Parts: sequence; C-alpha cells; structure tokens
Amino acid sequence: MKGEILSVGTELLMGELADTNGSWVAARLPALGIQLQYVTIVGDNLDMLADAFSRGLQRSDIIFTTGGLGPTQDDLTREGVAKAVGETPVVQQEVVRDLERYFQGRGTAMPATNIKQAYLIPSARFIPNPNGTAPGWWTQRNGKIIVNMPGPPGEMHPMFEDQVAPKLREIVKDEVTITRNIKTIGLGEGAVDETVSEFFGKENPYLGIYAKQDGVHLRIIARAKDAAAAQKLIQPVEQAIVSRLAPYVWGYDEETPEQAVGQALVQRGLTLATMESVSGGYLVNSITEVPDCASFFKGGVVAVDDGLKIANGVPAEVIQKHGAVSQQAATAMAQAIRRTLGADFGIGVVGMVGSRSDGGRQVGLAYLAIAAQGQVKEMELRIPPRRAVMKRRLANTALIELKRMINAL
Amino acid sequence: MKGEILSVGTELLMGELADTNGSWVAARLPALGIQLQYVTIVGDNLDMLADAFSRGLQRSDIIFTTGGLGPTQDDLTREGVAKAVGETPVVQQEVVRDLERYFQGRGTAMPATNIKQAYLIPSARFIPNPNGTAPGWWTQRNGKIIVNMPGPPGEMHPMFEDQVAPKLREIVKDEVTITRNIKTIGLGEGAVDETVSEFFGKENPYLGIYAKQDGVHLRIIARAKDAAAAQKLIQPVEQAIVSRLAPYVWGYDEETPEQAVGQALVQRGLTLATMESVSGGYLVNSITEVPDCASFFKGGVVAVDDGLKIANGVPAEVIQKHGAVSQQAATAMAQAIRRTLGADFGIGVVGMVGSRSDGGRQVGLAYLAIAAQGQVKEMELRIPPRRAVMKRRLANTALIELKRMINAL
Repeated sequence: MKGEILSVGTELLMGELADTNGSWVAARLPALGIQLQYVTIVGDNLDMLADAFSRGLQRSDIIFTTGGLGPTQDDLTREGVAKAVGETPVVQQEVVRDLERYFQGRGTAMPATNIKQAYLIPSARFIPNPNGTAPGWWTQRNGKIIVNMPGPPGEMHPMFEDQVAPKLREIVKDEVTITRNIKTIGLGEGAVDETVSEFFGKENPYLGIYAKQDGVHLRIIARAKDAAAAQKLIQPVEQAIVSRLAPYVWGYDEETPEQAVGQALVQRGLTLATMESVSGGYLVNSITEVPDCASFFKGGVVAVDDGLKIANGVPAEVIQKHGAVSQQAATAMAQAIRRTLGADFGIGVVGMVGSRSDGGRQVGLAYLAIAAQGQVKEMELRIPPRRAVMKRRLANTALIELKRMINAL
Repeated sequence: MKGEILSVGTELLMGELADTNGSWVAARLPALGIQLQYVTIVGDNLDMLADAFSRGLQRSDIIFTTGGLGPTQDDLTREGVAKAVGETPVVQQEVVRDLERYFQGRGTAMPATNIKQAYLIPSARFIPNPNGTAPGWWTQRNGKIIVNMPGPPGEMHPMFEDQVAPKLREIVKDEVTITRNIKTIGLGEGAVDETVSEFFGKENPYLGIYAKQDGVHLRIIARAKDAAAAQKLIQPVEQAIVSRLAPYVWGYDEETPEQAVGQALVQRGLTLATMESVSGGYLVNSITEVPDCASFFKGGVVAVDDGLKIANGVPAEVIQKHGAVSQQAATAMAQAIRRTLGADFGIGVVGMVGSRSDGGRQVGLAYLAIAAQGQVKEMELRIPPRRAVMKRRLANTALIELKRMINAL
C-alpha cells in the first residue's frame, strides 16, 4: 500500500519548527505494510490543501495528515478534505454536546468557533481524541483512505497507536517490514563486517552495517506477511550476531546509551556518580533523562574551574603535576566522585575544546576514566574540536564503555 | 516570488531523521522576498524526483533542494533535474581535475563513482562547495530557478549564506519580510498586551503576541522593498516597545536564555556558578552551550544525593530542618556554590518530579534562588511534573531571572 504524509501548518513553512510529526509517523509505517512515498508540508491555505489531497488521492492509497484540526479560522484540514472529495461538512449534534460538556467541565462555555470540531462529511468517521477537543477524521472513499490527526504530539501519538495503527493492521494486507538495530562499540566497521560476513548479501532478512558516532550499528530488515513472521526471520540472525559480538553490543533499536546504562545498573542494584569538564554537563544531563535515574545516579560535578574539582576530592597535586587535561586528572576525578558519593562507579571526563591551548597539546584531545572497586578503565580520544561534537561523543563513549564494563561483571 | 523546497533522501522518508534542512532554509526565505508554498520530502528515486521537479517548475518560480548530491548510485538529485528539464549531463573535465586534486591531498585516488560530481547540464552552473566534494547546481531555464545544495548542514549552510542568498538578493525584486522577535518575562500576556496595545491591529508593521514557555514574545513583522526599508518600519515600534517593557525584556530573535546571560556577564566581567537537583544538569549543560562559557562560568553541581550538596558547602541542618525541596535549600545551594567557587552569582534549583512525594507536597513544586553579593532572589514555581518540562522550564526561568537581575545592576 502506497502512502503519503501531509504536515499542515504555516508555522512549519516559516521554519519556526522542524516537522517532527512527519518523521514520527514515517517511522511507524513500514511495520504496517505501508510504503511511504512523500512527506509534504502545506500551509494553512484551503486551495493548496485541497490540491494536496487531490494529488495524494491520485498517486497514493492512503494519506496521513497531522495538524489543522483546531477551532480557529486558520485550521482548514477538514475543509481541505471536504473540498477535495466534493462533500459538504454537516455539524454532528452529539459531538457538539460532547464538546459543550468538555468546556463545562472546565468551567467555561464552549467558544462558538469550536463548532468546526463537530463537522463531518458523509465519507468520514470520527476518530475519538481522549486528549483534546479535536477529534480526528477517518475518510474512506473509492478504495482510498485519508487519516486526519491533530498536531499536538500528546494527542497525535496516542491516537495513532491506539486507534489508527490497530485499524490499519486489520485492513492492510501488504507485506510488513520490521527492523532490528543492534548497536556495538569497540570494534571497527571492518572487524564487525568480517565477524558476521556470512549474513550479508541476502535479500530477506537483509543485513546493513553503519558507522555512527556511537559505534557500529547492524540493521536487520525483514519483510513478511505479518510482524510475527518477520520476527521469525530476524530472530536467528540476531541471535547469531549477538552471540559473536556479545562483549561489544551495548544496545538495541532506539535505545540510548543512558537508557542502556540505567537499565543495567538498576538490574544489578549498582550506582553511578560523574565528574566532567569539557563535556560541560552533557553527560549528567543525559543520565537524568532516564525516568528512574534517582535509583542509580547519585549526582555529578561539572567543573570548569579546577577549584570545584579540588573541593570534590581531586588532589590538587595531580592537576599541578599532570595538568587539568591528562589521563591522571580524569582518573583522579572518577575516583574522587565515586568516593565522595559512595557510588559503585565513577566517571571522569576531561578534554580541550575551542581555541584554548595547554602546553602545546592539540584541541580535540580528551581523556576518559571509569573507576570501580579495585579497577579503572582509561581511554585517550581525539575528537573534532567542536563543542557540540565533543560533548555528545564523550558522554556517549563514557556511558557505552561503562555498559561494557557492567556486561563483563 | 513563489518557492518550494525538496528535501531528498530515503532516510528522511524512513523517519530516521527529522528534516531540519527544510526548516533551516524555510526560515531564511521571507527576508529574501520568497514566499514558500511547499516543503516536500522525496526518496532517492529518479522518477519521483523528476516528477517533483516538473510539478515544482509548474507551480513555483524557484525550487531549493538539499541532499542527493553525493557520489553513490542512490544520489539522484542531479539526474532528477536533468530528466525534468530534458537535458543530458556532461562531465566537466576541470571539475574532475579539482576532485582528483582533492583526493590526492588526502593521500587517496578518486573513487570512480565521484565522477558524477563533475556532471553538468547546459542550463546549470556549479555552486562551489569549499566544505566538501559535492558542488551545488544553479539551474536557470524559462524564467525558473532550481538551486541544488548538498545535505550535510556543514556544507549546505555556508553555501546558502555565502553564495545562494547574495545572488537571490540581486535577482528577487519582490517585497521582503523581516521579523523582529522581542522576548519578555515577568508580565502576563494580558499586561504585556495592554502596555503596547496601540501597536496592535496594524498591517505593516504587524505586531503579534505569543505566550511561550520562556515568557511572552512580541513579534514585529514588516514588509518593504528591501531589508533596509523594512528595518526602518520596525525600528520605531521596537524602540517604543522596549522602552516601555525594559525591565522585562531578556532577549531578541533566536537568542537563548543562556546566550543572553552569557553576553551580559561577559560585558560586565562577572561570573556564575550553579547547583541544581531536579533540573538534572539541564541548566549547566545549557550554559556550556555558549561558546566562550569558560570566561564567565565556573562550574556546576548536579546533586541528586544530598551528600553532594553538603560536600559543596550546603549546611546539613538546612536540609534536615526544611527538607531538600524547600526555598531554604535552594537559597543555601545558591549561596554555597557562589562561595565555593568565588563567583559573582550563584543559582540554586530544587523541586519534585515524577512519583516521589515529600511530606505530602505536590510533585511539580520547585524553588529557585539566585544569590549575589548581599542579596538573594527567591522564587516558588509550580510546573507540570514531567521531567523534560521541569528541566527546561526551571533552567530557562533561572537564566532569564538572572538576566533581569543583571539588567537592574
């Protein structure tokens, strides 16, 4: 089944926001057997919207839209569908009553403009929206489908997952595509390639290899009549790959380094503390993205000034003797914060960014240390000396290397 | 002049990335007098690309593309343009020599596939790419323009700003649209509205008001024959607004709270240190996004565990007596980190997130403190108790309130 996505909203055309709704929906279509052909951003303009729907109905089997379902004059998605299919919207009294009840519950009268949200054309059915006032539309006509969803992600995501996707699983009979992403670090692309070489060059499941900033990813892509059958194709390949690369595998699919580490620490009842300079808090801020971080993370110090390192237990003489950007300093930071907070693991990160120079050493030079009971893992890295790259790369590397240390326990 | 954008790449259609190139180019078109009609994502497919170009040439005056200029078989943007305009690409020997020199400089021979990057059709001219191997194309034919740029932002941004935009400023004679965004905090939307009410309801310059998570924004939009003339329309309105709202204005246009604070601190030679719990390092990580942060920022502590607060100078009895989530704790943290690091300002942030409860107080409760010589600014906030919202909101509020304190010095 061929699909396309329309993201509706003049603010998207003004470049004030990137279209994250489009990519969110796009990522979910292969598993439903829908082949995405185009994503188009259209402004809040009735003629352009109607044109976009007409063109979509010619070249695709299903059109998904996000946005333009609000109550204002600028919200024209419903009107665009009606115009494209040549039907007239009629106010649905039972929906008007629901809307009135919704506003009464909030202690206000329904604004007159919200009546638009009770419009329906004969070929459309409402998709209920438990998280807002704008119901979606499911329009089916001449074998084509249009799915209109609201723009706010907090309303659109549950509408898609709870109502749209289940219905599509019933309807779409095309082959589905399922992807499994295995994330490794510690081996180069060539070495990974060689280790699993026999799985390359096949059609189904297809195996791809990608060098990313957080290591080498292996992506298994399978097509089958349904998700269960596709999983059956993926499973033996995944097992073989993981058994050969086990010490290097740190995560799967959309998993982030901080999620992988958080889960591993929680499972073993272990704790972590951090002290970083050049990564500037990117490391600690990543760790606190994990919902239950308080159960494994004790805190972090972001030391630009050496005084803060010393206040938190780093011996002044280590910095004096070896410099703030040295393996010794990183190790002393990891050990000091581990000791100060009574944590099982301590991470230390130092490096040079921007135009600073320190004893003639190059910017982009960085040192990592991970301290545990009776052992320290140390690493020297050279990274493009741009702040954003260094922050992300060092935080990810520190977390992934910690995950590998936990794997080896 | 009517424009559209094509973002080229199957990985965009797979939802692996959001299309940030499209929104980046989109944001720059109004000031060039180009009215953007559509942004479309197209996969690496020759027929679909050629179709998209043909349709664009019918309905728009200028088409911008990003992506698909690499050396591989999947890079088909050039081929799509050639097919749409019915011209045949010819290899340009002088570009082949440039490419060969580029690869020689890196100590390797040019891969044969890179020859594609020396293709040109008669209606096109190269746009040099000093940051990569893929030159852009500027195609002009029958009064229509196609601008093809590479996908990597590090190559596309300078090509657009240094070469494409200047040429468009010469060619496009349409009215340009210039926007000035004034960011305030500390007054509600109603109060801001009243203070500058006489400027609303006019066509040119138009004044809009928007409630955002970092305060109330006023946006002045002017149209005129060129940028200078539009600026002249904006200037008196901007001056009047800023003079009335001065104590509440914290930034302009794309400025972030951390940039505004960084600039203000550097100008006055003042320094900052932070200690945060619930914001989890979002505050310190934001501050270190500012390129010259080392000149005004001394460091930050992210204390999940109370032990880290105490190790950095917070009196244990303050936490025992008032609790970790209290105004007293936030103030003690701000004062302690200011003192420990000898900074001019100290920020303290505490709060409750998620399912934790503390003495029956609600999650979403947070306290801020900003300590300076002889004074402390204290604030109690109630925020939707979602981690991401609390982190961003508290970090932004702390920085903006600090900016207002510096303004008042």
